[in-house]
Amino acid sequence: MSEQSLHRAVCPGSYDPVTNGHIDVVRRAAALFDEVVVAVLTNPAKRPTFTLEERLDLLQQTVGDLDGVSVAAVHDGLLVDYCTKIGAQAVVKGLRSGTDFAYELPMALMNRHLTGLETVFLPGEPAFEHVSSSLVKEVAGHGGDVSGLVPDVVLARLLERLG
Amino acid sequence: MSEQSLHRAVCPGSYDPVTNGHIDVVRRAAALFDEVVVAVLTNPAKRPTFTLEERLDLLQQTVGDLDGVSVAAVHDGLLVDYCTKIGAQAVVKGLRSGTDFAYELPMALMNRHLTGLETVFLPGEPAFEHVSSSLVKEVAGHGGDVSGLVPDVVLARLLERLG
Amino acid sequence: MSEQSLHRAVCPGSYDPVTNGHIDVVRRAAALFDEVVVAVLTNPAKRPTFTLEERLDLLQQTVGDLDGVSVAAVHDGLLVDYCTKIGAQAVVKGLRSGTDFAYELPMALMNRHLTGLETVFLPGEPAFEHVSSSLVKEVAGHGGDVSGLVPDVVLARLLERLG
Amino acid sequence: MSEQSLHRAVCPGSYDPVTNGHIDVVRRAAALFDEVVVAVLTNPAKRPTFTLEERLDLLQQTVGDLDGVSVAAVHDGLLVDYCTKIGAQAVVKGLRSGTDFAYELPMALMNRHLTGLETVFLPGEPAFEHVSSSLVKEVAGHGGDVSGLVPDVVLARLLERLG
Amino acid sequence: MSEQSLHRAVCPGSYDPVTNGHIDVVRRAAALFDEVVVAVLTNPAKRPTFTLEERLDLLQQTVGDLDGVSVAAVHDGLLVDYCTKIGAQAVVKGLRSGTDFAYELPMALMNRHLTGLETVFLPGEPAFEHVSSSLVKEVAGHGGDVSGLVPDVVLARLLERLG
Amino acid sequence: MSEQSLHRAVCPGSYDPVTNGHIDVVRRAAALFDEVVVAVLTNPAKRPTFTLEERLDLLQQTVGDLDGVSVAAVHDGLLVDYCTKIGAQAVVKGLRSGTDFAYELPMALMNRHLTGLETVFLPGEPAFEHVSSSLVKEVAGHGGDVSGLVPDVVLARLLERLG
Repeated sequence: MSEQSLHRAVCPGSYDPVTNGHIDVVRRAAALFDEVVVAVLTNPAKRPTFTLEERLDLLQQTVGDLDGVSVAAVHDGLLVDYCTKIGAQAVVKGLRSGTDFAYELPMALMNRHLTGLETVFLPGEPAFEHVSSSLVKEVAGHGGDVSGLVPDVVLARLLERLG
Repeated sequence: MSEQSLHRAVCPGSYDPVTNGHIDVVRRAAALFDEVVVAVLTNPAKRPTFTLEERLDLLQQTVGDLDGVSVAAVHDGLLVDYCTKIGAQAVVKGLRSGTDFAYELPMALMNRHLTGLETVFLPGEPAFEHVSSSLVKEVAGHGGDVSGLVPDVVLARLLERLG
Repeated sequence: MSEQSLHRAVCPGSYDPVTNGHIDVVRRAAALFDEVVVAVLTNPAKRPTFTLEERLDLLQQTVGDLDGVSVAAVHDGLLVDYCTKIGAQAVVKGLRSGTDFAYELPMALMNRHLTGLETVFLPGEPAFEHVSSSLVKEVAGHGGDVSGLVPDVVLARLLERLG
Repeated sequence: MSEQSLHRAVCPGSYDPVTNGHIDVVRRAAALFDEVVVAVLTNPAKRPTFTLEERLDLLQQTVGDLDGVSVAAVHDGLLVDYCTKIGAQAVVKGLRSGTDFAYELPMALMNRHLTGLETVFLPGEPAFEHVSSSLVKEVAGHGGDVSGLVPDVVLARLLERLG
Repeated sequence: MSEQSLHRAVCPGSYDPVTNGHIDVVRRAAALFDEVVVAVLTNPAKRPTFTLEERLDLLQQTVGDLDGVSVAAVHDGLLVDYCTKIGAQAVVKGLRSGTDFAYELPMALMNRHLTGLETVFLPGEPAFEHVSSSLVKEVAGHGGDVSGLVPDVVLARLLERLG
Repeated sequence: MSEQSLHRAVCPGSYDPVTNGHIDVVRRAAALFDEVVVAVLTNPAKRPTFTLEERLDLLQQTVGDLDGVSVAAVHDGLLVDYCTKIGAQAVVKGLRSGTDFAYELPMALMNRHLTGLETVFLPGEPAFEHVSSSLVKEVAGHGGDVSGLVPDVVLARLLERLG
């Protein structure tokens, strides 16, 4: 065990916007791997609430300073190809329920089939079980209070955008 | 990122006996962590088919030579305490279905509550979805052919014991 | 226990149109709470088959006479705010499967987070396990017989609209 | 709506011993129903850790003073018959996952078949997702710290019994 | 398509005793296959409520006269070997929920691995979703009315045995 | 048992395009039923990647020569009506998970309610657990290698269309 290889993982997502649930997963992934890349996926078929630049900026402000964590955009192509390019062995996903698992499983198996890329599931922090970007936006858009569910900097931007 | 910390994971189980499904999980865990300890749990309330020594021996023969992998017995006490003692940050579990996840979740959350020990779930290799120690023993005990589901050394021992 | 407080529940839905499955849940909710408000949600992003007025009218004709039951529209804003306004402590939802539960859970937890509003799940009547507004419309739209799955007054309106 | 009928619910369980998860469900049930009876079930086929008297006593100390809540033992016979006898319309159960629901559903449907007794499911508080009597006893029995998961009076009794 | 091969299926179970849910599955299987063998499994590790002879007798009286249906005991050995011996291509199982499926899947995959024996799942009739041999016995044993859940001849035998 | 009735089953789907997972289910269905019709459904609300003619052609080339198998289009109307017209007693579906089952169940129960048409579920071959038309197209569209997941003739057509 004289030399250790570097273990690098990717936390992929649209992060539109980043929530406290995302941050919890990134933080925990960073404790398990040498390096974690928070990878913002762009989906040409969907129109996001925040631009790619805004999403990257909010991530940079909220997880960019964590030890071993960096933020990047995946512009196009397959996630497996991106992971090969940057030398990542695993994708990390938070998992809220068995139904979540059934939904994620085909993609995880496909990725392993394509390049051997592993998907590692972390059980979601129960305190954030109801926290997703879409639900937070829906609630905030109708005037509901989502403080505590997203970082303050995101809260401000959400109120500005949806208020 | 000048110095990396060591990441150590534990693959716990009763391994009564080790199957090809277990070996797949250990091998994949070994690619993600610097060190992996395959920890044989002893449960005083259950009478195993193979003694602790036999189970350790079969593991040693089948995964003991993998890079970064070692085999150990957890004699008593909580798994979290064992992990603290050996400096492991995570437990690794193979996951076959969403129902499996629902079953494993309370213990995973309890372990995180107790010491912060993480549980990392790897989706099981589909080719081994029907392979568990208990089902393999049931089939072999009725004269069914389980070659390909367990390593050859285990197969020989199973036939000797159950035949 | 000299004075009882009033317990009021809301059965929310789009009711496009009301089915016998919905009516079963409303009837059972009415036996558990002092007052039940059947609340028709409007979703500006979706184009319903029946107008809000038609949906309210069909509900009025089918559950409006049940003891303690009233029908209302929720024009906009969050369901939790509507419940606060009318003094309802709980939302009642029929539940057909564990997958349904996983789908409903985040919103239920969000509502409890926002105002303490409870969500109470009643196991769906098995005889109506295949009855949903959308499936009923799909079947009726292709000429299938949905009598027995919706009240007669709804059946007539469906045939008129889709036939 | 000039006269309200009384709505009474039962929270059944073995409560061996009561946990903070149980108390959360009882408290929430008490906010939805006029009266809640916490009913301790006895199962002749199982040997409990705490005697019926101890379990009733711990419940009395922890939920007995809640408004509208009482504690009772169900000595034998069917839960539906007990509920008929005391005039309860519903059973209340906390639900942690879709798998839990699949497990509880047959009994809930059977009870409704037998006497019309309803089962009302409340989504469990995520903070207590890992808290069950059996897991708490297993952890405490191996010297793990379960403070915060059970009331202090239960903690003391657990340590005395299992320590 | 000048000559058809014979398709034979097995409905395995302990049938301790047969319920109306079992009979529904056998009847539906008989409409899909040329021949259906209702196979009573014996498990030396469990003590049944009814003897093998009683279970076979009750099946004979309730499904023995259905067209293409016969009743048999599987004394020991693997179910796949029995199916090979009698030339059956498939096992038929009723399925009540996704959790049921997760439970049955490993055995179904194992059987296919061993001899190619297929397992065919039929969605359970919702009206019998709460009907299992064990729940029926539990309810009847406490004096509950299970008429309508089992055939009359089984009801009489149950009351005699458990009453 | 002197005369056997003919058992005919339908494997419905959009087959846009056919995958090796589909072919596995058709092949297994053909071993259980006298005749199997692979029925291509057309959905006016969706724009397929391949035209109906192309989809039929690819099926013809890949499963059209299997014994007892034919390929057909269902132009409109309900699947149950099509099955009645051609004298099919059952629909066959591959099932990958308990979540899949929960999704398919309402339609299966509706079909049985409408005409008694049965739905028979076959557990999916684990080796194809990650193989669906949509995921295959997504991967191939981004330049991923999907050989082995679809027949060669489909692979060629996919690369031509998406490349």
